[in-house]
Amino acid sequence: MTSLAHIALDAMGGDSAPGMVVEGAEIARSRHPDARFLLFGDESRIAPYLARFRRLGEVCEVRHTGRAIAADEKPSQALRRGRESSMRLAIDAVREGLAGGIVSAGNTGALMVISKFVLKTQPGIDRPAMVSFFPTRKGRTVVLDLGANVECGAGNLVQFAVMGAAFARIELGIDCPTVGLLNVGVEELKGNDTVRSAGEALRDGEFGFEFAGFVEGNDICEGTVDVVVTDGFTGNAVLKTLEGGSSMFVSFMREAFQSSGTVPKLGYLLAKPAFRRMRARIDPRAYNGAVFVGLNGISVKSHGGADDAGYANAIDVAIDLVRGRFTERIQADIEKSYAVPGELADVTPRAAVS
Amino acid sequence: MTSLAHIALDAMGGDSAPGMVVEGAEIARSRHPDARFLLFGDESRIAPYLARFRRLGEVCEVRHTGRAIAADEKPSQALRRGRESSMRLAIDAVREGLAGGIVSAGNTGALMVISKFVLKTQPGIDRPAMVSFFPTRKGRTVVLDLGANVECGAGNLVQFAVMGAAFARIELGIDCPTVGLLNVGVEELKGNDTVRSAGEALRDGEFGFEFAGFVEGNDICEGTVDVVVTDGFTGNAVLKTLEGGSSMFVSFMREAFQSSGTVPKLGYLLAKPAFRRMRARIDPRAYNGAVFVGLNGISVKSHGGADDAGYANAIDVAIDLVRGRFTERIQADIEKSYAVPGELADVTPRAAVS
Repeated sequence: MTSLAHIALDAMGGDSAPGMVVEGAEIARSRHPDARFLLFGDESRIAPYLARFRRLGEVCEVRHTGRAIAADEKPSQALRRGRESSMRLAIDAVREGLAGGIVSAGNTGALMVISKFVLKTQPGIDRPAMVSFFPTRKGRTVVLDLGANVECGAGNLVQFAVMGAAFARIELGIDCPTVGLLNVGVEELKGNDTVRSAGEALRDGEFGFEFAGFVEGNDICEGTVDVVVTDGFTGNAVLKTLEGGSSMFVSFMREAFQSSGTVPKLGYLLAKPAFRRMRARIDPRAYNGAVFVGLNGISVKSHGGADDAGYANAIDVAIDLVRGRFTERIQADIEKSYAVPGELADVTPRAAVS
Repeated sequence: MTSLAHIALDAMGGDSAPGMVVEGAEIARSRHPDARFLLFGDESRIAPYLARFRRLGEVCEVRHTGRAIAADEKPSQALRRGRESSMRLAIDAVREGLAGGIVSAGNTGALMVISKFVLKTQPGIDRPAMVSFFPTRKGRTVVLDLGANVECGAGNLVQFAVMGAAFARIELGIDCPTVGLLNVGVEELKGNDTVRSAGEALRDGEFGFEFAGFVEGNDICEGTVDVVVTDGFTGNAVLKTLEGGSSMFVSFMREAFQSSGTVPKLGYLLAKPAFRRMRARIDPRAYNGAVFVGLNGISVKSHGGADDAGYANAIDVAIDLVRGRFTERIQADIEKSYAVPGELADVTPRAAVS
């Protein structure tokens, strides 16, 4: 009974759950009138919020559970003890075909471990990866892996490229996205063995995207390519460094004006709308919704501190991917690329790490 | 005949060389009256600039050579064919004891390869590393390795920590710096084997710094620790991503005001001094001067596009390190730490990667 726009929501995950989840669902509903939501969580806490949105109530179903996974719970423990938790039941709903995707703002590690355990890695993919958008001068760039795999072989990187391209096709609406492999330089001889073999396989293979070769860290925000591929250790470091950098930049801006005289302060007041416009371009809420890709189903992680607008964006991502048949597309791309005679068979993770 | 403040300068390295080199040296001279400079390069091109600064001329000596290493020359080629180049001769001067350190804004790869070949890795260090500052909310943080080693074992990371701490002691003037190891999370079990073994060795060992455990990307700009240690692949990606992010941020700010109405534009004009103050805090020139550490001598890389002020900062770093007896301090710290019974002996690069 799956429909293209059925989304399961972990109503208890996130700092401001369940209020922010319900309010986020209402925003998403207004943008996607034919979406349907399955909310998992404490009915008595969800009901008061839901009562405020009549039309949301019509496209929503609440499945009660008194259990929730704590933000600081160990993923392994959450997997063992959390069978009745809102997160687990929401993920189960995807496996059972009741929903095409699940969104949670809860414990990231638990979401990854449980999603992988319940939904299983899709055929042709060795390791799922975490993918999201980064703001760039030109718009948005897709980056993966953001932390699911702290060690990657060349074969993993090649698969990340395929998944990232499928993601960009649906989310950015680009038929033939450009894909770059993050390295310490753009020349073919740069980098470590893993990156070099992955680069070779991507250059030689025939995929449904354009491999643009190696890119460097600065290329991310410059928007040089649509998709940047890297291992989960580097991707995680880069993501968090940029988050820290953005927040430092904003606070430097604030301090500069606060310590200024009357004239600059007046200037600040006059310029405020322009400031707001600038901050909106790097607003983390606009980039909310990291997706754990490579599973038999869509699993979207929202920032734990997201507000309703941010959470709605994460739901949007889930809806887009479900409608765009993301999982099936990856499947087709992987089969196609493996069918092409080339090096790809040689760069399965094990062989590549050697 | 080494003196504490003798610095060799590759006068032909950098986009605006030799003018920027001479002008930078003049700025550095005004701040360090007892510094002495040895300039290597084309005398006929250096002389007109030098003629403008009488007092600089008194503390400067020019060693003529008509050869220079091109910005795009392969490091291996530069090493083989560049024996008479300004960069090579400047580095040779350090080995011969004519100078304590060398500064170049030329070809980075060539500077690393030639410095390592001529000066040799110092005893107790397995691999030299590239170190520099990052701007933070609280001031500056030392980060290494920024790209010298694309693959690192746990033992390398431990040695980077020792070198980074010695660098922070001299450059930040902190007796007992705090050192963090970059990881995908702060919990002890996070990360890959290499990072975990390095963390263990740093926790168990006794070094002249405080090991603060694992840190994440956002901790860099938050200034959580004085020194952040990571492998050269991740460090390079993080450095360049942040550079790209800063430049994107500044351009977003400019665009926001340009596309605004008259009132915000007026506000911008009034607020300009505050803006300038903010940009100064992330001005790459203030952080110019990456040092290739772990060699028998100081080798400082200036940005190729540096202007005189930026180049002077790179010279400052070289002078500070020469005066602070940087190389000798690392030596002493390494010997002290190896003398302590502990795991360190077990985490030599080879053993650690296993």
